[in-house]
Amino acid sequence: MRLSEDQVARFRDEGYLFLPDTFSADETAVLRDEAAHVFTLDREEVWRETSGVARTAFAAHTYSEPFRRLGRHPRLIEPVMQLLDGQVYMHQYKINAKAPFDGEVWQWHQDYGTWKNDDDMPEARAMNIAVFLDDVTVANGPLMVIPGSHKAGVQEAGHDLETTSYPLWTLDRAKVAELAEAGGIVAPMGKAGSVLMFHSNLVHASPPNISPFGRTIVYLSLCEVENHIRRFKRKEWIAHRDFTPIEPLDDDCLAELVAARRRGTAAE
Amino acid sequence: MRLSEDQVARFRDEGYLFLPDTFSADETAVLRDEAAHVFTLDREEVWRETSGVARTAFAAHTYSEPFRRLGRHPRLIEPVMQLLDGQVYMHQYKINAKAPFDGEVWQWHQDYGTWKNDDDMPEARAMNIAVFLDDVTVANGPLMVIPGSHKAGVQEAGHDLETTSYPLWTLDRAKVAELAEAGGIVAPMGKAGSVLMFHSNLVHASPPNISPFGRTIVYLSLCEVENHIRRFKRKEWIAHRDFTPIEPLDDDCLAELVAARRRGTAAE
Repeated sequence: MRLSEDQVARFRDEGYLFLPDTFSADETAVLRDEAAHVFTLDREEVWRETSGVARTAFAAHTYSEPFRRLGRHPRLIEPVMQLLDGQVYMHQYKINAKAPFDGEVWQWHQDYGTWKNDDDMPEARAMNIAVFLDDVTVANGPLMVIPGSHKAGVQEAGHDLETTSYPLWTLDRAKVAELAEAGGIVAPMGKAGSVLMFHSNLVHASPPNISPFGRTIVYLSLCEVENHIRRFKRKEWIAHRDFTPIEPLDDDCLAELVAARRRGTAAE
Repeated sequence: MRLSEDQVARFRDEGYLFLPDTFSADETAVLRDEAAHVFTLDREEVWRETSGVARTAFAAHTYSEPFRRLGRHPRLIEPVMQLLDGQVYMHQYKINAKAPFDGEVWQWHQDYGTWKNDDDMPEARAMNIAVFLDDVTVANGPLMVIPGSHKAGVQEAGHDLETTSYPLWTLDRAKVAELAEAGGIVAPMGKAGSVLMFHSNLVHASPPNISPFGRTIVYLSLCEVENHIRRFKRKEWIAHRDFTPIEPLDDDCLAELVAARRRGTAAE
């Protein structure tokens, strides 16, 4: 799985790449069912909103076989190795359920802002992958990005401990307005199985989900191995400390689980 | 201005009609500038959000010449007369500014629910027109509708006095989910000057505006004259009591203001 020169150029320019139909309906169904199971687990890695609805399951690749495989999937890892020009490790892994009616707003932020401030990650040689487990539409709180905003580098940010359930370094309004005047705002939307890759300095946000439809997304945050974090303030399952380079699995690693499910057996 | 048979059939079936480019950029600019002026007025009809930002200006057609003309514009009034099969009066008129960053959510509701409960309007022979004064995009809190939901008639609703600044009869979640499973959710989006017409029983909502872009919309609520309200509980400038049939003006009634502005004079 290699990105074309055109795709690489677009990523450098706009800070994101949207790849529809990266996973088949069957592969996605395996992950969606597993996410529903993970959200029932009584583990410290599974966070809930004030309503009690599951919001985020951290580090699911360490306790779920389908999500372990997704975290080493060549359709995700190889393009990131190509874009970051090196080997990568998993800095953070989370399943975000933006619950029907209750899913909350995420204010405008850059992920690298948090990784720098909280984890002392030296440079923005890290990026995100969003894997849609549900169809993402205008109705269910789509992720919005400001194209090109990654080029402006790290922005000043304030630590927002109130608006969202999760502490976040968010940008001030004047800066968001300035960047959006220049780059506009885009919401990459599409079917379950679509993938959005974006630069760790890309400014993004998402509105609440006021619809009756769920919007579960898996986020992989991958970092070039030499750029690993230096500060271990956050829980190990939020900001990982295992800097071993990820070896991608075979392309059929999820399809194997689909086949096993059809046979009624568990895959190894 | 007459709707085609196809448009009428779609309205009956889906409960809404989206008409892009109904007003020219010049006509829209006159209205947008006037809206900015209206929002500065210190009048009881101009409501503000908790932040102090203007949220809604009621009855602007009674104290603003451009909005008086819009309220009698043939591109709006004639299609509604056609759809309601009779003469119409203005039940409510408001300019809603969904302010950048601060514009609030409107939960799922039917407008006729409020008109029935608060104003004792006999039947749902009334409808809404939304005139976009700004581009409406995925980013700035677009209106969302559930196609076909008007056919289910008036739904039970609870009086929401907390979530939004404006008291609203809102539907319960189970009913919204049931209707959206059947009809889906659509957000008609488009350029300033676009018009959305929708049935007074169409279930709709809008998420907060988390973007730096404004989203001002004028809402005309028109009622067939014999179906006028029977209860006068709300302020006269919220639920009007003048049931005189509207006589549409000429098609160039806003263009005259554009021309007058070019000449640097005020139109009569």
